[in-house]
Amino acid sequence: MQGKVLTLTKRIRTTPFSPRIEKYVNGVTVYNHMILPTVFNGLEEDCRHLKTDVQLWDVSVQRQVEISGKDARKLLEKLTPRSLENLTSEKCLYIPMVNKLGGMINDPVLLKLDENRYWISIADSGVLLWVSGVASGLSLDVSVFEPDVFPLAIQGPKSRKLMEKIFGSEIRSLKYFDFKKFNFGSHKVNIARTGWSKQGGFEIYVEGYDYALNLWDELMLNGRDLNVRPGCPNQIERIESGLLSYGSDMTIDNTPYECGLGRFCNTNLKESCIGAAALKEESLRGPKKIIRSFDIKGPRIPFCTNSWPITLNGNKIGKITSGVFSPDFDTNVALGMIDVNFSTQGTEVKIEIDGDIRTAFVSEKPFTTKLTPFV
Amino acid sequence: MQGKVLTLTKRIRTTPFSPRIEKYVNGVTVYNHMILPTVFNGLEEDCRHLKTDVQLWDVSVQRQVEISGKDARKLLEKLTPRSLENLTSEKCLYIPMVNKLGGMINDPVLLKLDENRYWISIADSGVLLWVSGVASGLSLDVSVFEPDVFPLAIQGPKSRKLMEKIFGSEIRSLKYFDFKKFNFGSHKVNIARTGWSKQGGFEIYVEGYDYALNLWDELMLNGRDLNVRPGCPNQIERIESGLLSYGSDMTIDNTPYECGLGRFCNTNLKESCIGAAALKEESLRGPKKIIRSFDIKGPRIPFCTNSWPITLNGNKIGKITSGVFSPDFDTNVALGMIDVNFSTQGTEVKIEIDGDIRTAFVSEKPFTTKLTPFV
Repeated sequence: MQGKVLTLTKRIRTTPFSPRIEKYVNGVTVYNHMILPTVFNGLEEDCRHLKTDVQLWDVSVQRQVEISGKDARKLLEKLTPRSLENLTSEKCLYIPMVNKLGGMINDPVLLKLDENRYWISIADSGVLLWVSGVASGLSLDVSVFEPDVFPLAIQGPKSRKLMEKIFGSEIRSLKYFDFKKFNFGSHKVNIARTGWSKQGGFEIYVEGYDYALNLWDELMLNGRDLNVRPGCPNQIERIESGLLSYGSDMTIDNTPYECGLGRFCNTNLKESCIGAAALKEESLRGPKKIIRSFDIKGPRIPFCTNSWPITLNGNKIGKITSGVFSPDFDTNVALGMIDVNFSTQGTEVKIEIDGDIRTAFVSEKPFTTKLTPFV
Repeated sequence: MQGKVLTLTKRIRTTPFSPRIEKYVNGVTVYNHMILPTVFNGLEEDCRHLKTDVQLWDVSVQRQVEISGKDARKLLEKLTPRSLENLTSEKCLYIPMVNKLGGMINDPVLLKLDENRYWISIADSGVLLWVSGVASGLSLDVSVFEPDVFPLAIQGPKSRKLMEKIFGSEIRSLKYFDFKKFNFGSHKVNIARTGWSKQGGFEIYVEGYDYALNLWDELMLNGRDLNVRPGCPNQIERIESGLLSYGSDMTIDNTPYECGLGRFCNTNLKESCIGAAALKEESLRGPKKIIRSFDIKGPRIPFCTNSWPITLNGNKIGKITSGVFSPDFDTNVALGMIDVNFSTQGTEVKIEIDGDIRTAFVSEKPFTTKLTPFV
């Protein structure tokens, strides 16, 4: 079904930024019932540009689920195994959310707006309904809804220079995963030093339609000498960087431990969260399979659209869930889940790609291990 | 963003039937994280064929949410305002599901498999997470999951003839919204007389991958003399028929009363369901706006991809949420939500379509009001 045209209906939303990018977009996906661009000038050229310059990403699909009201904190404690002890109004927190079996519901970023008001910035699953359902079941005094917030990501090594032009030098004080309110004209906007790449960058939580296009235009105008372009999360860069895609690399059938997210599970302190018992058991026993990076040898692989079996001596020991050719590493980079017994660095395995058997090597670390510094 | 190519990744699933339809599909959408075809030989030709012959629809996207366990019934009572008093193992039940504010979560069909086991056949929203969340919040003893079930719809006036060839004359005894187990080789399969068209038809709840392609091939082979073709839900036919699309014509911001689904809300008996208080209030007060059909005059409208304002004397009184030209009714057919004060049959309003002002007339009934009889 690759290469088919997407029929738009109202059920799949466009974004405030759609009018500015429509003519440059060469591929899209649907994410949280909304359009997300996937390619502009080709995956490889987009990747090269992202790594050298600066891009504006319309990531409105990272919907916000707002929880507000007097039981907001109590509800949040139920929703994640991560300790919220050090949660402040200046730091984003990556919080795995699990069901009662310890299966991943989503891997969102939590923002505390004030004591009784929070945003969960979500990956692609119905978190609004999960959170509402739990709240209704527990009869908690909260309001749970999706506000009109449309994140705009500014990514790439020149992103800080561009942001500084618009928001001033204070932007330089933001550390990785910090967030803070900045002025844009008469508007106060939340800006975080986050984003779904390792090329450095920021995410602006644009509220409503009022100033969205104005902000876009200002960024494009001020970024001319920095070679700014519209862009989007890049499959090559994110696989090299080991950034997991919920729905592809992890699903509701995986625990955080399997996803390499065990360090975010404080099962001792968090007896009360949904899934605590299952996670505790898994933490003691250890996961049976785990996410790893893979270096797949031989000619360029096709873009991975489903999953490819990983085998050892003819036995299936896992599956590749994302994979693509990387020009920079001059090899095929991939992510997949593999039996922990065969998950150590350098283990040689076979990958079955549509009948073609390839040799591949397990890597415990991503291809890109560090955040690119700003220029 | 109309006309863009969809990039496939593992996050968006194909179906067991994808290999058989891929080369005929000319447009797709994403529905419950899965591919749904939208067009084969053109919307109008697809519509004409659906109304005269028989089509096989890969509607695997109608995911099943299975609820099983000793508290299954108790949980279901919480989830819908519809009375479950007459629920049997032979009748599908259309059950609006609402949140605590009375907002539509989904409009699925409920199938009772046995006393402690149910399927909810869903429209496009995260019902699995909603139901799991409510169950977790209430600490109910149930298992909630998405089984490997892939509905295959056989639609069109010749559908009964085709089904009879495969499943025998007993298929004729199925009344509208009945369901029953039939044999396909050694497999027992649930078949319902349902489907998202008014052209008559059935839905086969195909379990797993084992016999899916075999069943598809048998249907295609036996349907040759009936002019069978692969097809899909058709936007012209479903708008003519007044079949609502969750996400387009109704959302979480609408109550069942606004959606014309008040008759499915038994607010007297159902004090215990989530949203009961809000629905009771709405039933006493009456909804402020309501879904209606619209006949939009003038030349062919473009396919409605977002929403179009409905105005009266320059005041906004509603919005069109789906609309398309209908060759059979030789007019533009549409669905939309309008202020109840202007919702009576024949009311003249204006519709704003990308700057173009059109005259339109409200209709309290769909264009197609009866189920097409089988031939």
